Amino acid sequence: MKILIVGGDGYCGWATALYLSAKNHQITIVDNFIRRQWDEEHQLNSLVPISSLEQRVQQWKHLTGKTIHTINIDITNYSSLCEILKCEEKFDTLIHFAQQRSAPFSMIDHDHSIRTHINNTVGNLNILWALHEYSPETHLVKLGTMGEYGTPNIDIEEGFLHIEYKGRSDRLPFPKQPGSFYHLTKVSDSDQINFACKTWNLRATDLNQGVVYGYETDEINLSEILANRFDYDHIFGTVLNRFCIQVALGHPLTIYGKGGQTRSFINIRDTVKCIEIACEKPAQLGEYRVFNQFTEIFSVLQLAQMVSKVANESLKIPCEIQHLNNPRKEKEIHYYNSINTNLRSLGLQPTLLTDQTIISLIQLAQKYQNHVHLQLIPPQIRWTSENQQE
Amino acid sequence: MKILIVGGDGYCGWATALYLSAKNHQITIVDNFIRRQWDEEHQLNSLVPISSLEQRVQQWKHLTGKTIHTINIDITNYSSLCEILKCEEKFDTLIHFAQQRSAPFSMIDHDHSIRTHINNTVGNLNILWALHEYSPETHLVKLGTMGEYGTPNIDIEEGFLHIEYKGRSDRLPFPKQPGSFYHLTKVSDSDQINFACKTWNLRATDLNQGVVYGYETDEINLSEILANRFDYDHIFGTVLNRFCIQVALGHPLTIYGKGGQTRSFINIRDTVKCIEIACEKPAQLGEYRVFNQFTEIFSVLQLAQMVSKVANESLKIPCEIQHLNNPRKEKEIHYYNSINTNLRSLGLQPTLLTDQTIISLIQLAQKYQNHVHLQLIPPQIRWTSENQQE
Repeated sequence: MKILIVGGDGYCGWATALYLSAKNHQITIVDNFIRRQWDEEHQLNSLVPISSLEQRVQQWKHLTGKTIHTINIDITNYSSLCEILKCEEKFDTLIHFAQQRSAPFSMIDHDHSIRTHINNTVGNLNILWALHEYSPETHLVKLGTMGEYGTPNIDIEEGFLHIEYKGRSDRLPFPKQPGSFYHLTKVSDSDQINFACKTWNLRATDLNQGVVYGYETDEINLSEILANRFDYDHIFGTVLNRFCIQVALGHPLTIYGKGGQTRSFINIRDTVKCIEIACEKPAQLGEYRVFNQFTEIFSVLQLAQMVSKVANESLKIPCEIQHLNNPRKEKEIHYYNSINTNLRSLGLQPTLLTDQTIISLIQLAQKYQNHVHLQLIPPQIRWTSENQQE
Repeated sequence: MKILIVGGDGYCGWATALYLSAKNHQITIVDNFIRRQWDEEHQLNSLVPISSLEQRVQQWKHLTGKTIHTINIDITNYSSLCEILKCEEKFDTLIHFAQQRSAPFSMIDHDHSIRTHINNTVGNLNILWALHEYSPETHLVKLGTMGEYGTPNIDIEEGFLHIEYKGRSDRLPFPKQPGSFYHLTKVSDSDQINFACKTWNLRATDLNQGVVYGYETDEINLSEILANRFDYDHIFGTVLNRFCIQVALGHPLTIYGKGGQTRSFINIRDTVKCIEIACEKPAQLGEYRVFNQFTEIFSVLQLAQMVSKVANESLKIPCEIQHLNNPRKEKEIHYYNSINTNLRSLGLQPTLLTDQTIISLIQLAQKYQNHVHLQLIPPQIRWTSENQQE
């Protein structure tokens, strides 16, 4: 297949590009490297040093003989995006990762909220218009997030809900409760894509992904020049990755509030497989389908206890759990049950979180512990202003 | 009360500004006059000629002795908006009308879709941030639309829905099905406001308004210099107003498709009263409440039949009904029942659609029939491209 990966220089995008290239798909990456600029702007760094995209694809070519094309454009620039989709031999699939993906980033201040909003929602609108105008049969595979749903007191279905109400019934979009300006953009994207499929007969798969953890994929492991980014900071770092780094540094695992916050999780090895499944079994023309892309559900406290047990028992590293004031506005104790049967029924074999995965992440953190800037770990971005704290 | 009316030069905004000023509220209008620019851009005109905002407020001062302040800024410019809200004596209420409000306009092409998106969603985000930073106790009254809900096969409640599902239950945001890029922005706005109330303890009333019809209010009637705009064109004109103009011109009433499209309607005399009710009985801090702001439900065909009957029987003007191909993508036969108890329970006495209202609109159109550009009436903006037509 001929596949365009928009945002292919990021954490999920790069792992996906290599995986699909290894499977002999013809890959073109579009990226404007804004994620690397945000690192500089906020003085963040990846735990594992990463090469430039140019070095990455050269090394990939050198090791495998496979070519990954790269194009540097900002998809909020519509005419540049159209130039790519006007090509004669159309792309079978466009995978859209090109979004600001951090909830705390979107909550820093007005400016970061608007930049997140424009980058994500205008980028998404541009992709829909460009597909409509120049490539209406290309299958859009869009990365959404399980966070779009929030934490309702009913089961979370995949995108839609069959509702019985006052003797009548309908299948309606699942009612969503986004918890940050970032999450608001993702909900808006989903609504836009659903509308474009209905109105313009486009085809799309919206992958509502859980929290991604892990570092290794077979392709990333081939060479240090192919290394993937691994975020541990308070803006882009996610919880399991951060815990493993805290163990490596001999620090307590820090939980925001009670730790009953329960979320869906997925190993990056499964992320790339899910995307492959979505590409190979595309939506029909006019179809907007939603897959909940995760394999397991944990509370933050459960995860901390798993990591702490592995640290103490297997690695003999003393490890405690510390509760911090929660910088976010969210329920800390709540019902949570989300459904993920669509991808399973299309063949996904889940990679479950094992002690060995945790050990390998801790060892990765140990290997690169000199790169860690400790001050980047504690939360600094609050959802509410000072005078609103309870 | 001290009230800021953002978008106070438009159809609903201007009628509201006069009505609330007449009730001795202290009114400031913010507007960037972009609606007048869109008229020029698309060579549209109001059926009734309108004066400049400066002339309007001078005349109001002359007739009533009451002052309406005016400020010309674009609310997508955040710092300008903040300057207004930084003032020492805070506004009790901010009424937000400042949106591109036409579904066809948003569907013209990529450019109009993005302009609608930026104007509406960035404007709305800016208002929320500015209230949060400088005036968190000001009550936000936001104009939404009944069109956010689409046409679900269940009753349309006011903003939220009590859902029972697999033995569990929750009160969740009503699942929405916006039918244009314009409607998508309104859904996004509602989600943003709901989030801001929960997270920042703001207070807001989201008025999901039906299709507004009518021209007269007591204040507008005082002077031709106070005249309100009255749109009849294919972009900004709404159905009942257009029918009355078609009668005045001796043209058939044109229905898009079967005409079973059923919608909620409200007279502009009730629009201003609903907004007064929302202002005088504000939401609590932290509360996001939704009122469905309409008084009656009609199908397009029912409306055409009412107008046709009045024309034929009362005015002796021969009047036929003509079905055109539907330029939109929408259900033409569907279930529709929406609830509007919140405003009624706060005291709204509905102004129902009478033969007399229809007659007065037809007479208004007769008076100004020389201003009508016939070529502006037939629909020219299609939801789908040529090769997609069924």
